[in-house]
Amino acid sequence: MQDLPLTLYRAAWVLPVCADPIRNGAVLVGTDGRIATVGPATAIEPPESAQVIDLGEAALLPGLVNVHAHPELAMFRGALEDLSFRDWILRLVGAKRAALTDADFHAAARWTMVEALRSGITTLAATESSGASAAALCEAGLRGVVYQEVFGPDPSQVDDSMAGLRAAVDCLRAWECDRVTIGISPHAPYTVSDELFRAVGEYAVAERLPMAVHVAESTIEHQLVQAGEGDFAPGLRARGIATPPRGRTTVEMLDRLGVLRARPLLIHCVLLDGDDIRRVSDTGSAVAHCPVANARLGHGLAPYPEMIAQNVRVGLGTDSVGSNNRLDLLEEARIASILHRARLAQSDLLRPADLLRLCTIDGARALGLDGTIGTLEPEKDADLCAISLAAPHVRPVHDPLAAIFHAARGCDVVMTMVQGRVLYRDGRLATLDPAALEPVMEDAAARLREAMR
Amino acid sequence: MQDLPLTLYRAAWVLPVCADPIRNGAVLVGTDGRIATVGPATAIEPPESAQVIDLGEAALLPGLVNVHAHPELAMFRGALEDLSFRDWILRLVGAKRAALTDADFHAAARWTMVEALRSGITTLAATESSGASAAALCEAGLRGVVYQEVFGPDPSQVDDSMAGLRAAVDCLRAWECDRVTIGISPHAPYTVSDELFRAVGEYAVAERLPMAVHVAESTIEHQLVQAGEGDFAPGLRARGIATPPRGRTTVEMLDRLGVLRARPLLIHCVLLDGDDIRRVSDTGSAVAHCPVANARLGHGLAPYPEMIAQNVRVGLGTDSVGSNNRLDLLEEARIASILHRARLAQSDLLRPADLLRLCTIDGARALGLDGTIGTLEPEKDADLCAISLAAPHVRPVHDPLAAIFHAARGCDVVMTMVQGRVLYRDGRLATLDPAALEPVMEDAAARLREAMR
Repeated sequence: MQDLPLTLYRAAWVLPVCADPIRNGAVLVGTDGRIATVGPATAIEPPESAQVIDLGEAALLPGLVNVHAHPELAMFRGALEDLSFRDWILRLVGAKRAALTDADFHAAARWTMVEALRSGITTLAATESSGASAAALCEAGLRGVVYQEVFGPDPSQVDDSMAGLRAAVDCLRAWECDRVTIGISPHAPYTVSDELFRAVGEYAVAERLPMAVHVAESTIEHQLVQAGEGDFAPGLRARGIATPPRGRTTVEMLDRLGVLRARPLLIHCVLLDGDDIRRVSDTGSAVAHCPVANARLGHGLAPYPEMIAQNVRVGLGTDSVGSNNRLDLLEEARIASILHRARLAQSDLLRPADLLRLCTIDGARALGLDGTIGTLEPEKDADLCAISLAAPHVRPVHDPLAAIFHAARGCDVVMTMVQGRVLYRDGRLATLDPAALEPVMEDAAARLREAMR
Repeated sequence: MQDLPLTLYRAAWVLPVCADPIRNGAVLVGTDGRIATVGPATAIEPPESAQVIDLGEAALLPGLVNVHAHPELAMFRGALEDLSFRDWILRLVGAKRAALTDADFHAAARWTMVEALRSGITTLAATESSGASAAALCEAGLRGVVYQEVFGPDPSQVDDSMAGLRAAVDCLRAWECDRVTIGISPHAPYTVSDELFRAVGEYAVAERLPMAVHVAESTIEHQLVQAGEGDFAPGLRARGIATPPRGRTTVEMLDRLGVLRARPLLIHCVLLDGDDIRRVSDTGSAVAHCPVANARLGHGLAPYPEMIAQNVRVGLGTDSVGSNNRLDLLEEARIASILHRARLAQSDLLRPADLLRLCTIDGARALGLDGTIGTLEPEKDADLCAISLAAPHVRPVHDPLAAIFHAARGCDVVMTMVQGRVLYRDGRLATLDPAALEPVMEDAAARLREAMR
């Protein structure tokens, strides 16, 4: 990476996460893209060679970490409203196959990166079948993990599925760098056989590949795993695939199949019981909590406070814009807090300081990146975002943490930086051009509507 | 009111609410500030005298109706985080008395109007003790109801309370006009005696004054009403005020005291049972649903689907920024949908079209204004807002209703108009200047922090 200018960023508030908020703080970013110093502005004398950028009435904090998204699906925003989960996923998969091309997925992945940059997200974990996000993350300058999806409910076709997965991973590894990691994702219990789960788990452990799985999202998934019944069962049986009971719960099944030995990122985990939570914790697996998508699809709410109490690593994810329909982690955190407070009728759950950790260091920990990012500390990479506190809807600011989560919104983000490189500032993107992507996106969206009529 | 220029507004989408969305629609606004015509742009030939304003890639819809806010409390945003309800209200009332002046409340009310204009709200129902919102609504050019609050838990002081209320109402009536209505609000069961409730109810019926009451918000309110116990009881008894059981529920008590004869706006209604809902419906009372504030304060979630099933008039309110902390009705509607879907595990509740009605005609109906506003129909007042659909976080637009509630945010509002008068457009306010208000707001906020140490 080329050398960056040594730069001192000043802001009304600096939020190190690992320490208390600093009024009138500053962060010195070195020429290597790492954090050199963090402290009160008055205590940091900029070296003569440094440029000084004053962000004014803003909060400067670690870049936000979105632990679960489907960047290739950006054209599905608002296309699949109010459906049952089964209809939602069938229409999504059907339209994806019938109407969309690799070029569409590449445009959509880049579009998602535009949204991420504009809303302060610096790390994004992508789960997808096209692998489009690997190039998109590189091009955008963002950090991320790309989990290559694999499907295969038919146990007789495990070898084919594994060969396809290995080929895709080998291909995607061309994009691997210190910002971008390639992983794998056996999609979900209703699309992956026990045999394929076992094979993918062994592959992940052997190759030390990060793994993500959609787990315990819906009642119909649970019915399929526990009893071989429910809305997913007839479709599988019609394809000649047997649907025996496979486990007490999805987590228990994955444990039995050796999948949890890979310490995967378990996406959703809405329907976990106490035993499941203990298994997740004991195996060191992580969880991607996606409260908005889960609620909107009618699944309910994951037991986040209960998972935290068992020391589970939990990060926050937006899921795809086909279910959410936003990619705004500030809003996701606010709504998480609102949902859990409504559920437990408690006013002190998920406080602003908890939300700050959830969106930064907790997300980094869930992805195994907490040694590199997630707090403002010397030697960590300078992945930062700045959120304006100047607009009428944010003022007055009694507490910068309450202000960023409960008054500001994604659109108040004024700067996004990865490894010291400013990728977004005051409405301008350094690496991507949404205007150039828009014709492809609009065309893909039109084909999608046509296919779903 | 001075004559306005005859103006044709065109937009990519026009949402009449009372009819299906119109692609490439137009609204002709007459010189009297009323809607003249609504339809496809190609079908409306602008009269020669008309100016034409093309809003481009935006949705044009009825202005949003916020049925419950406390404009005078704008300086409390983010000042009262994570507290129990009792501590929250005691600190709020204490700080209000100890630290704030009428000048502060007037600045705060205007600040709230700035926020309303910037987020597409054209009608705002204000509940407050200072009455500051009457002048602020007039100055802003907004529409609203100002419910003058009255307090009095001591039954021996009913006459004093009533005299104060009558004097305040007489004073506020100077601001009454076709946009601004004065009403009254006996605050809540824990601050108002049975005797005062009865007297205020009689006053409201006799003078045909709109009335609003905070009802069935918290468990501790319910405990006080039902058993004379709970966290509110000791404080009242320490003031020499008896706390006998007063009713099976707050709604039953208000019914018995004759308060529901005034067909009041019942704010919150979180803890309603089936019998309560029937009473609310049978008396023709309305409800202000404030899901975000209720959840954040740990009260839970009001049974909105159940109320709707009983034909209760329900509008949506943000409540004060001291609890919410936003005044963004688009977001309030989205979160309402998310909360109810999470609670009932159903993916087809509060669909985008339901949210559109909730924020417009349903709010108008809850305030008794549905003959004048709430839909785009000829002869109704031209209270409109326009929401941009152009930003990357909103596109592509498969469905304009899903786009405005689940992709756009308050900051995507590009125009707000009341009675044909453009009060906000592209970041510029016509009637208020937040920069002039900011010094008072910041000073008030500083005194608040000092008082709450």
